[in-house]
Amino acid sequence: MGFIIRNSFVALTFGITTICSFAEDPLPSWSDTAPKKAIIEFVGKVTKKDGPDFVPVPERIATFDNDGCLWAEQPVYFQAIFIFDRIKALAPQHPEWKEKEPFASVLKGDVKAALKGGEKALLEMAMATHAGMTSEEFDKIANDWITTAKHPKTGKPYTEMVYQPMLELLAYLRTNDFKTFIVSGGGIEFMRPWTERVYGIPPEQVVGSSIKTKFELRDGKPVIVRIPELNFIDDKEGKPIGIQSHIGRRPIFSAGNSDGDLQMHQWTQGGEGLRFSLYVHHTDADREWAYDRDSHIGRFDKGLDEAREKGWTVIDMKNDWNRVFTFEK
Amino acid sequence: MGFIIRNSFVALTFGITTICSFAEDPLPSWSDTAPKKAIIEFVGKVTKKDGPDFVPVPERIATFDNDGCLWAEQPVYFQAIFIFDRIKALAPQHPEWKEKEPFASVLKGDVKAALKGGEKALLEMAMATHAGMTSEEFDKIANDWITTAKHPKTGKPYTEMVYQPMLELLAYLRTNDFKTFIVSGGGIEFMRPWTERVYGIPPEQVVGSSIKTKFELRDGKPVIVRIPELNFIDDKEGKPIGIQSHIGRRPIFSAGNSDGDLQMHQWTQGGEGLRFSLYVHHTDADREWAYDRDSHIGRFDKGLDEAREKGWTVIDMKNDWNRVFTFEK
Repeated sequence: MGFIIRNSFVALTFGITTICSFAEDPLPSWSDTAPKKAIIEFVGKVTKKDGPDFVPVPERIATFDNDGCLWAEQPVYFQAIFIFDRIKALAPQHPEWKEKEPFASVLKGDVKAALKGGEKALLEMAMATHAGMTSEEFDKIANDWITTAKHPKTGKPYTEMVYQPMLELLAYLRTNDFKTFIVSGGGIEFMRPWTERVYGIPPEQVVGSSIKTKFELRDGKPVIVRIPELNFIDDKEGKPIGIQSHIGRRPIFSAGNSDGDLQMHQWTQGGEGLRFSLYVHHTDADREWAYDRDSHIGRFDKGLDEAREKGWTVIDMKNDWNRVFTFEK
Repeated sequence: MGFIIRNSFVALTFGITTICSFAEDPLPSWSDTAPKKAIIEFVGKVTKKDGPDFVPVPERIATFDNDGCLWAEQPVYFQAIFIFDRIKALAPQHPEWKEKEPFASVLKGDVKAALKGGEKALLEMAMATHAGMTSEEFDKIANDWITTAKHPKTGKPYTEMVYQPMLELLAYLRTNDFKTFIVSGGGIEFMRPWTERVYGIPPEQVVGSSIKTKFELRDGKPVIVRIPELNFIDDKEGKPIGIQSHIGRRPIFSAGNSDGDLQMHQWTQGGEGLRFSLYVHHTDADREWAYDRDSHIGRFDKGLDEAREKGWTVIDMKNDWNRVFTFEK
C-alpha cells in the first residue's frame, strides 16, 4: 500500500530466510504539510519504548468514522443509495409504496423529496428494507450491491470512492501495532461484508448502527432474524457509547469529518497521555466535494470550531492530500 | 503456560537472532483421553494449508463462556458475591435496604434467602449496585474487588479459581492463530478489567450482559454514566445475538458448560465446514464440584442431551483433566 522497499537483503543460513525491509514514506499520498508531520510525530512518540509518551501495544486503539472519512458521502450517504435500490427491488412486493411517502418519491426517482423527512424518513426506509430476513441473507444482499453498484457521478464502484491517504494512514497505524476500528453512524451489517477487503478492518472491529435481531431455529437450522426495530444509533453521543460497548477501551487516536464525530473526539481526548484527533475537512470541489457548516450531509460546524479551539488536526483536503481517491493515478 | 521447549537453537548472523522452538505438549493438564485428541485433531485439520478442512486465519473465531467454563461458579456466580459485597459497602447510603428484600437478606448474611427470587432478584441487586457511577469508576470498583476478594471455600483469589486446562486451550488456539473471545452471561464491564491479565483476552474480545449508559460532559470532562436499566442479557438465545453484534462472524469453535451455552453451540454448528463444540461437565466433587441437571447454578440438562445426541465433545472433568485449578501444583 504505497510502501517502498529501499533496502533488502536475504540471509540464507541454516535454511532460514530473513528479509529485512525499510519503509521509506508510509504516507505518500499526503503532502508534506503540517498534518502529515503531526501524525508521524505522534506515532513516533507513542511507539518510542522508554519515551515519556510510550503507549503499550494493547492500548493503541484507533477509531475511524466511515462516511466522509474513509470513503466519500456525496451526493448522499452511499447506504441511502443502497436503501433506494432496495426499495426499487422490493416494490413489486409492496404495491402500497406507490402511494406512500417517502417510498413513492424514491420510486419516482425524486431523491430530494424522499429525503425531505430527514433522518426519520431515512430510518423508516432502512427498517422497511433491512429487516425481515436473516443476517446471512442481508449479508449477501449488501455484498451483491457493493460489488455491482456504481457511484452516480464518477461511475466508479463505491469501494473505489475510498480515500487513498486514509488507506495509507490505516496501514501505517497497523504497522505500528495499532488496532484500527470503524465507528460509524452507518449500519454495522451494511459495512461488515466489505470492510476487511477494502480497509483491512475485520467485522469484529466494525462498530455501527443496528436494528434488533432475534435467534431462532427454523426447521432445526439456527438463524438470526432481523427485526424492523431500532437497536442503536452510533452517532454523536452514541459514538463513545458504541466504543465503550464494543471496544471497552478508550481510543488514543480518532478520525472523523463531521459534527457526528465530535463526541468521539471528546472521548478520545478525555483520556490521560498523548492523544490524536483528526478531522477531514472537505475543501476540494474539483477532486471531491467542498462542504462544511451548511451541508445536509456530514455537517461540520461545531466540530470545526472545537477542533480549531483545541488545536486538533484538521485536514485541508485540497492542500494536504496530493491524491484523493484510490482510483486516481 | 505449560509449553516445553524441546529444541532450540540460536543463529547469530549479520546481527540477526533467530530462535526456533518446538512445542511438545500444548495441553499438559489434559489427560490423554478422547477430548484432548479431538481438540488437537480439529486444530490440525483447520490449520492444514491445502487440506480439505482448512480455515483462513481471519475466520478462526473461538468463543468461550466464562462462569463454569473458564473459572468456577460455585457456590454461586462470583459476580453475585461481588454484588453482595457491594450491597454491604453501599448499605450506609441506603438505610431502606434494611427492610427491603432481597437487600435485607444479603445484609443479614442469608445468601440463600437473597437468591430465592432467582435471576430477577439478582438483576435487581445488580442494577442497584452497578449503576449510578461512571464507567471509569465502575472499572476501578470491579478491579479493586477482584484483586482483594477471596473465594469462600478455597480462600484463593477468584482469578486463581481458573481452570488450568482451559488456559492451555486458549493459548493453544491462539498459537494456531485463533482469535479467542469470551461470550458470557456475566456483566461485560465486570469482566473487562481483568480478562486480559488472567486469560489473555483483551476488553474488545469480551461479550457480556450490560446495562444502559449515556455520554455526557461534566464540567467539560466527558464521562460515560451507567444507568440502572437493562440493555442486553448475553445468555441462551442472547449468545448468538451477542456474537453477531460484537464479532459479526460465526465461531468455528465454542466452549461452554450449561444450558445457557446451548444456542451458542447451535449457532457455531450451523455454519459450513468443520466445527467444534465443547461442554465442560462438572463431575469432580473432590477437586471442584459435581453438578448438572438439577443445579441452581449452571444447569446442564438440555445441553447435555443435545451434546450427546449430536456428538459434541463433553469434558468429564474428573477423568479428562489431570489438573483443575491454576493454584494446584
